[in-house]
Amino acid sequence: MEQIPVLSLGDILLVSIQVDLEDQLALRLQEDLSNRIVDTGAHGVIIDISALDIVDSFIGRMLSTIAAISRVLDAETVVVGMRPAVAITLVELGLSLNGVRTALNVEHGLRLLREAGPALFADAGDDGEDEAAAASADDATARR
Amino acid sequence: MEQIPVLSLGDILLVSIQVDLEDQLALRLQEDLSNRIVDTGAHGVIIDISALDIVDSFIGRMLSTIAAISRVLDAETVVVGMRPAVAITLVELGLSLNGVRTALNVEHGLRLLREAGPALFADAGDDGEDEAAAASADDATARR
Repeated sequence: MEQIPVLSLGDILLVSIQVDLEDQLALRLQEDLSNRIVDTGAHGVIIDISALDIVDSFIGRMLSTIAAISRVLDAETVVVGMRPAVAITLVELGLSLNGVRTALNVEHGLRLLREAGPALFADAGDDGEDEAAAASADDATARR
Repeated sequence: MEQIPVLSLGDILLVSIQVDLEDQLALRLQEDLSNRIVDTGAHGVIIDISALDIVDSFIGRMLSTIAAISRVLDAETVVVGMRPAVAITLVELGLSLNGVRTALNVEHGLRLLREAGPALFADAGDDGEDEAAAASADDATARR
């Protein structure tokens, strides 16, 4: 398979990285993701890396780049599902995921994005679970 | 990578299949998924196959098996993201995805599962009042 699917969840895009990312695939993912952000007007990107045993400097840089591109397009990026061993290796290698926010799993990532940009979820008219988001709306606008 | 990650979204489990599924991987996915359904009490499973160019009889059977296992564990399975070419091939090969529901994409799949089992979205701990919840689910979808 030569493409990583980008899934849409309301105003959030979800990417699950499961294969070894070589250059071409990483570039294609960046391109697909930016196009999808523009097409869908997404305000958040969640990248699940729970399938990765290793995050080397190449992948780390790619995650930072995706986060930077998304930010320019007004979308926040959260990396989720990092394995403990990966976190240890990252620190040992001295790699920092520059400008990348992290969360334990997809649900925490969704919550983080909801808190960061609650307005979109209020508009979406989904279910009524916006209390937390609404409560922190002031916080979020202050932070922006 | 020798494992396909199973992501949790509230009471829904999400699996994005991106790699060629050989026997061992398919078996492992079935096992992981059943364990996760039991652990999380999930009521729905969404399998995204948008990355697959081909769905042959092996994958078709696997999808049916997963749906059957999930059903026994009280979870509904929806396959989403099927490419047009895959649908054509499936029909040409005379393969039917037995007992598998399909939806265009993850969002449609989520909506389908919400309509099928709305109680879980109203209140995670309480599956009793399907009627009332169904009414509010219709509202929710009508609003979109």
